[in-house]
Amino acid sequence: MTTPAAFIAVGSELLRTQRTDTNSLLAARLLRGRGFRLVEKRCVEDDEAAVAEAVASLAGRVGLVIVSGGLGPTADDVTREGVARALGVGIHRFPPLEEALAARYRALGREVPTFALKMADIIEGAEILPNPRGTAPGQLLVSGDMTVVLLPGVPVEFETILTRHLLPRWPVEEGTVRVLRLAGVYESQVEARVAPLYERFGREHVTILASRGLVDLVLEAAGEGACRRMSDMEEAFVAAAGADLYGVDDVTLAGALLATLRQRGWRLAVAESCTGGSVGARVTAEAGASEVFIGGVVAYSNALKAQLLGVDPRLVEEHGAVSQPVAEAMAAGALRLGAECAVAVTGIAGPGGGSEAKPVGTVHLAALTPTGRRHEVFTFPGDRAAVREWATNMALDLLRRCVVGG
Amino acid sequence: MTTPAAFIAVGSELLRTQRTDTNSLLAARLLRGRGFRLVEKRCVEDDEAAVAEAVASLAGRVGLVIVSGGLGPTADDVTREGVARALGVGIHRFPPLEEALAARYRALGREVPTFALKMADIIEGAEILPNPRGTAPGQLLVSGDMTVVLLPGVPVEFETILTRHLLPRWPVEEGTVRVLRLAGVYESQVEARVAPLYERFGREHVTILASRGLVDLVLEAAGEGACRRMSDMEEAFVAAAGADLYGVDDVTLAGALLATLRQRGWRLAVAESCTGGSVGARVTAEAGASEVFIGGVVAYSNALKAQLLGVDPRLVEEHGAVSQPVAEAMAAGALRLGAECAVAVTGIAGPGGGSEAKPVGTVHLAALTPTGRRHEVFTFPGDRAAVREWATNMALDLLRRCVVGG
Repeated sequence: MTTPAAFIAVGSELLRTQRTDTNSLLAARLLRGRGFRLVEKRCVEDDEAAVAEAVASLAGRVGLVIVSGGLGPTADDVTREGVARALGVGIHRFPPLEEALAARYRALGREVPTFALKMADIIEGAEILPNPRGTAPGQLLVSGDMTVVLLPGVPVEFETILTRHLLPRWPVEEGTVRVLRLAGVYESQVEARVAPLYERFGREHVTILASRGLVDLVLEAAGEGACRRMSDMEEAFVAAAGADLYGVDDVTLAGALLATLRQRGWRLAVAESCTGGSVGARVTAEAGASEVFIGGVVAYSNALKAQLLGVDPRLVEEHGAVSQPVAEAMAAGALRLGAECAVAVTGIAGPGGGSEAKPVGTVHLAALTPTGRRHEVFTFPGDRAAVREWATNMALDLLRRCVVGG
Repeated sequence: MTTPAAFIAVGSELLRTQRTDTNSLLAARLLRGRGFRLVEKRCVEDDEAAVAEAVASLAGRVGLVIVSGGLGPTADDVTREGVARALGVGIHRFPPLEEALAARYRALGREVPTFALKMADIIEGAEILPNPRGTAPGQLLVSGDMTVVLLPGVPVEFETILTRHLLPRWPVEEGTVRVLRLAGVYESQVEARVAPLYERFGREHVTILASRGLVDLVLEAAGEGACRRMSDMEEAFVAAAGADLYGVDDVTLAGALLATLRQRGWRLAVAESCTGGSVGARVTAEAGASEVFIGGVVAYSNALKAQLLGVDPRLVEEHGAVSQPVAEAMAAGALRLGAECAVAVTGIAGPGGGSEAKPVGTVHLAALTPTGRRHEVFTFPGDRAAVREWATNMALDLLRRCVVGG
């Protein structure tokens, strides 16, 4: 059985601004398959009573609470105080930490400011989790049936302490979560295809997550026989996914595309209009992209389509810049830059530029490889950002299908 | 005085996966300056008891709770039931909604499935907030001192109902929040520059948010005389920001750059290597970019740097692809595509490719305008994604400064 767990991010900036807590995502990812089930996340203000209330309200409901942030030296860093209050225990200054802090400041030629000494405060009964990347250590307490872990909010410190000092205590239970990653398909199509499998495996073990051309199928199995059940489940769902499946777990669509191109020894060039460079940006987000990706052209103006990609201006005149002939000519132009494969995007991202015949969201995609060519036209829903993201995902996927023949 | 508010996002997928709640960010942005102060955010499971517990625990602590998600037709949509349980009231089916639902399905040639009828359920005493973008309406209840608003989780439906039916009830209190947006500067530099102003205006009214070359200064004033104080505060902080300030509130760096170029009637082209198209993608994320932006080249390979941008291969041989001469030659090549202004990026994003002389994170930027030219070299910290984001932000900012002479 899995243990319910909760996450508390402490920081007023997570409430009052557009900043989001990312540590909880990291924790969810790292804890996946280790016997915990995240049942609640909270962001609370830098306020002792708020931290105390959050921790106290989770007692009896969860077995693990991770608290992130509020361990620094300033007056509004009050996580230690809040947690101690919630658990009804004291705080004491720990001399070895005090000495380490003093040494750290001495190395910078400074005295420890009095206020910074609070980073040497330890909650009664807590285990210290050393922080090799920063000043304030993590702390771990067991209170009744609940383990409370305090970690710094700085992501690199949070990740380092979690990875070094906590994950080794919580071994992975093999095969308990698997993410099947699909592209070029709508959520409703996937839903219809996997529905017959719900009866066999239980609907509660499957989550479908769709995002503008990408669909993740999250499969979960827990308890006795989890590995066997997961393996049966995976086989059935992979079959249902068919050619829409591009990878599993942490593979990205661009990463899967680059891997198939690398296998074949083919190089890639792109020709983008309405995506403005997003396809290239996604491809080059992958480490090692330079082995496969030579670059491309952002042909936002029609002049550049002609000048850099050799698109005949008469094609634009006759069919419009957003048309099959222009998309195909752009892909052919990208190929001539010196690649074996190319993908081209031309469309109307909005909010302006739409017409009755070609409404906002109309996007033509063309892909070319040594063994095939494809064209697709879509009318993507949503605003400018949505249309561009749909177009970027579908362009990468069209080329992937053209390469693997799927 | 501001009223404390809380946000509850209902959805197991927000806990078990890498999906994040974005509705709370939208709500925080739209509610800014309207008399509310967000003091807590939560994500809870699709579970009636979890929703009920969350709402009940906020009673007496906040004046407004927005609950997002869990209003659909499936078995795990239990927000209505959870909220009703927390407030100790009933739920009844509302015939006009039932009829509208039936009409909606009839138009698709189908009967309403029995399970979908729950979308016509209304919490006792709730006001219905019509949903023009979807099926389930929002609901608003007043319970004691607390207003509870239920909204669909689909972002476009969430935003539409919030904008049409709620914001008009909560007028903006002018001048209570202002965001000054700075670029091309480190957080510590901004901190040092504004520190002398804390005494005058109160540190608690200023939040500094830094993100890879971008720094936001969030200024807040509440209560009597807020407008006067905000105006004094803004004047003092704008002076401290100096040439690093590119805009206020919702202006983006790319948007500010495009506006200054549009004013001058100058067109823009880009030449990107390590950013792979990210600079172009950021520029074209702005509606109307085509008036200014002609496009550019993603010259990831050295061959394309020569072929499309006319970079002399001897420069690459002599100085390396990541060097001042190559960055400047790339910018010159982009200019020749037919623009008045250009910016070029060449760098080592990692994880491989670094050396002692040019470690991972080394990035050369060059900008050209009719009135000036600039070059900068940086060693950006962090992983591949961080280096690329730093480079993208700093490239846009270098060109902005080159245009405005800042």
